[in-house]
Amino acid sequence: MELFDCLNDYTGRDYYPFHMPGHKRNPESGLPAGVYQYDITEIEGFDNLHQPETIIRDAQQRAARLYDSEETYFLINGSTAGILSAVSAVVECAGKRGLGGEKEGGIEHRRLIIARNCHKAVYHAAFLNHLNLHYVYPGVYEDYDLAGAIDVNDIERIINRILTEKKAEAKRAGEMIAGVVVTSPTYDGIVSDIKKIAEMVHSYGIPLIVDQAHGAHFGMHPDYPENAVREGADIVIHSVHKTLPAPTQTALLHKNGVLVDSESVRKYLRIYQSSSPSYILMAGIDKAIRVVEKEGCQRLEKIFHLKNDLVKKMEACRYIRICPYTEPGKLVISVKGSFMTGQMLSYILRKKYHLEMEMAAGSYAVAILSMMDKEEGFIRLLAALLEIDKKILKEQGEQGREFEGNREKLNGKGFFSGFDMHPDVNMGIWEAYTSSCIQTELEKADGKVIAEFVHLYPPGIPLLIPGEVINQQMIKLIAYYIKNGYTVQGIQENKIKVVNQEIIRR
Amino acid sequence: MELFDCLNDYTGRDYYPFHMPGHKRNPESGLPAGVYQYDITEIEGFDNLHQPETIIRDAQQRAARLYDSEETYFLINGSTAGILSAVSAVVECAGKRGLGGEKEGGIEHRRLIIARNCHKAVYHAAFLNHLNLHYVYPGVYEDYDLAGAIDVNDIERIINRILTEKKAEAKRAGEMIAGVVVTSPTYDGIVSDIKKIAEMVHSYGIPLIVDQAHGAHFGMHPDYPENAVREGADIVIHSVHKTLPAPTQTALLHKNGVLVDSESVRKYLRIYQSSSPSYILMAGIDKAIRVVEKEGCQRLEKIFHLKNDLVKKMEACRYIRICPYTEPGKLVISVKGSFMTGQMLSYILRKKYHLEMEMAAGSYAVAILSMMDKEEGFIRLLAALLEIDKKILKEQGEQGREFEGNREKLNGKGFFSGFDMHPDVNMGIWEAYTSSCIQTELEKADGKVIAEFVHLYPPGIPLLIPGEVINQQMIKLIAYYIKNGYTVQGIQENKIKVVNQEIIRR
Repeated sequence: MELFDCLNDYTGRDYYPFHMPGHKRNPESGLPAGVYQYDITEIEGFDNLHQPETIIRDAQQRAARLYDSEETYFLINGSTAGILSAVSAVVECAGKRGLGGEKEGGIEHRRLIIARNCHKAVYHAAFLNHLNLHYVYPGVYEDYDLAGAIDVNDIERIINRILTEKKAEAKRAGEMIAGVVVTSPTYDGIVSDIKKIAEMVHSYGIPLIVDQAHGAHFGMHPDYPENAVREGADIVIHSVHKTLPAPTQTALLHKNGVLVDSESVRKYLRIYQSSSPSYILMAGIDKAIRVVEKEGCQRLEKIFHLKNDLVKKMEACRYIRICPYTEPGKLVISVKGSFMTGQMLSYILRKKYHLEMEMAAGSYAVAILSMMDKEEGFIRLLAALLEIDKKILKEQGEQGREFEGNREKLNGKGFFSGFDMHPDVNMGIWEAYTSSCIQTELEKADGKVIAEFVHLYPPGIPLLIPGEVINQQMIKLIAYYIKNGYTVQGIQENKIKVVNQEIIRR
Repeated sequence: MELFDCLNDYTGRDYYPFHMPGHKRNPESGLPAGVYQYDITEIEGFDNLHQPETIIRDAQQRAARLYDSEETYFLINGSTAGILSAVSAVVECAGKRGLGGEKEGGIEHRRLIIARNCHKAVYHAAFLNHLNLHYVYPGVYEDYDLAGAIDVNDIERIINRILTEKKAEAKRAGEMIAGVVVTSPTYDGIVSDIKKIAEMVHSYGIPLIVDQAHGAHFGMHPDYPENAVREGADIVIHSVHKTLPAPTQTALLHKNGVLVDSESVRKYLRIYQSSSPSYILMAGIDKAIRVVEKEGCQRLEKIFHLKNDLVKKMEACRYIRICPYTEPGKLVISVKGSFMTGQMLSYILRKKYHLEMEMAAGSYAVAILSMMDKEEGFIRLLAALLEIDKKILKEQGEQGREFEGNREKLNGKGFFSGFDMHPDVNMGIWEAYTSSCIQTELEKADGKVIAEFVHLYPPGIPLLIPGEVINQQMIKLIAYYIKNGYTVQGIQENKIKVVNQEIIRR
């Protein structure tokens, strides 16, 4: 029985609540009816997210069937909770595999290989678990200023480099390396070949975690990419609230294969999520799964065609381009080569056309498409973009896409210069991020160890991770970003947090 | 402007959403209107929970004013997130204070003094932070089988014991002890003297964290206890969803004084909470704060009188008693001395009278009262309890409250025997909880190191913590609980998880 119906059935009766939540389903609480009516706690018959045996278990199994997963867990603290739990679990499993292996300083500092452009939650998980991170860098689509896919060979190179350094045989890789984490699709909708990556890392006995937060709709229609569960990943995280019709903060964690212990995963899910999960959120996930089961494929088909229509009609544009490399659920609208920035485009779309984008970066804006979009949205968006393109043409003339305006080129790579500078690592992420630190002027920070995360946001590209060393090249780049109006998180009033060297020397 | 109104105002207009969430405010998503209408993401004008500068900042400041707090943070992953963040922050601050102090085995194992009956989240926080826990045990109300208050002198004794062991002066206490954590009120509504405790721990330079999850209504009416913020605690966590009219999963963290670094607190809040927090939840908190501001005192007054009325009329009962030691917001309904258990009482109240209790333990059931209760609830509850009491009298006769039925007495303490057995600690909680472990028959576990949490639940009393050693006395007690129908979490089919000794010996 559908969770919302169970809730509705119960709350419609004459049970008086002497339990939480404190609104007691009383309209005088001022909450919307759709909120207080369904908002209960773990009373008899309503199961328990942290020990599901009846209705929640059934709902999770339904979701698992949809994705072809062995196990699927509802998440109510976002993909964040899924990522923290996934990383903690693979690290714990590696610890159990590697007992008898080396220990350094009393706590085994385990290694995790991650895509540099992973979500902050992956870095937080590494921090909490005292990990040593090894980065694989995606390619770059310079024509669109987008991070590209992760190449399986780059991951394999890192695995072998670690094995060589440690003079270890391939069969010990699973003890030395807790796991590999990639994000696919990215925030911009770029997909990596998870199937190949999974096969390769499994040949070394290493588990694969895929942050597929932006791909909960994958595998539901032949013209969309396959989902990472079917492609063989051990743990996959889906933000059902991003691209499926589930409420914000809801997600799924899928666990498959034998490399990761399910009990471990469940343990961390209990740790990182509230012991009082919201039934509204859980019922919302259940509802979304049922809608997808029933209508997902047809709806995605419709969106696919609406998007293609729009893209086709956009070919008439002189300046605005839709990036062709993304999965169908994303519209990356590029204004590169025009005087306009992504932020300007996004601003105009909002202010003049009342079209709200998901994100705006230097030279593009991102629209998320979902199976709940209406034709109206596409009609309005197309009309707006055609009009804006005409205006750009009018202002800019026929100068062509090579126009860079006032923006300096850096190292030929432009926007992406900061992304793969591969800074030196002086200290572990945990040591640096918990150290005593001082704010220092950016220009005076050369050679210092960073104590903070420094990100270009949007679009969320890490420039420096705690424990890395900042150099002149990076200082110049950050200054460039700030001067050109980009937001650099981690820099406040031109100051950056560095580890207090006095403390290090003690 | 109220958050719900901001949301309503925006979603009522003609903005088309090309951003998450994926339901796109489309009724075809099947979500209740009160859900999808208010469920947006961090678009322009809607601030950001993790970096609040406008409407969310204002809403948090409003909440801070209500509690007289310097800083207040909205939580959307329950009190769990608040507790994890509070403990992590005080540990990090202690680390910075104590640099130059001793290190053991590469990572400073910091100490936390906690009430043994703290919520599991406190133990999880200790686990994540590799802490050594030192326990203070509450008293026991044997006439009601309730854990009592925490005595300030017991805490001070532990502080001094640690200082003595480490041959350290009192002024170094803040380096040796990261903090003190107490739960007040308890799940059953028992309050500790936070003012005294705060003064004492502050005299040693140690911060105090109060898990006041069940006391978000404190300080709003003279006949209710004062809230821990005003009583001087450094960090206080309030579950606004438990006793105020806010949605499930919402809470507040208040931070005051100088012993804890606010930036540290904010950092961990960003780590332990979703990067996509729900606006429905945040608006729900805002709404609850405003309701409390406007009507909280009058409503609590009304509930206070309705409860007192009920208690007075219950004096006629022969067997059922209302515990007089709790704060006004809890009704602990005791059937101790009758043949009935708390679970039986709760079952009858639900099945026959359609009154749903919050929790049922061995000899009592707990009702949570809130400012949103109606007189109807009290009328129905009183009638039910009077009727049930008559039935017990009829069945049991005038045997009096000494009737223990088939239940054996253990050590004279009965129900609470397991609670303060003070097991030996063999291993740190982190080492034990991540170790390789094996399931072993309970009877064969004597002398083994536990690798799991073993709880009597309800009411949620920890019997064994990972790293502790189980002995015959505890084995007998657990067997007694199971035999008498209590639920012991951590025991499955009479088996318990112990650390694999083979691994320890290596």
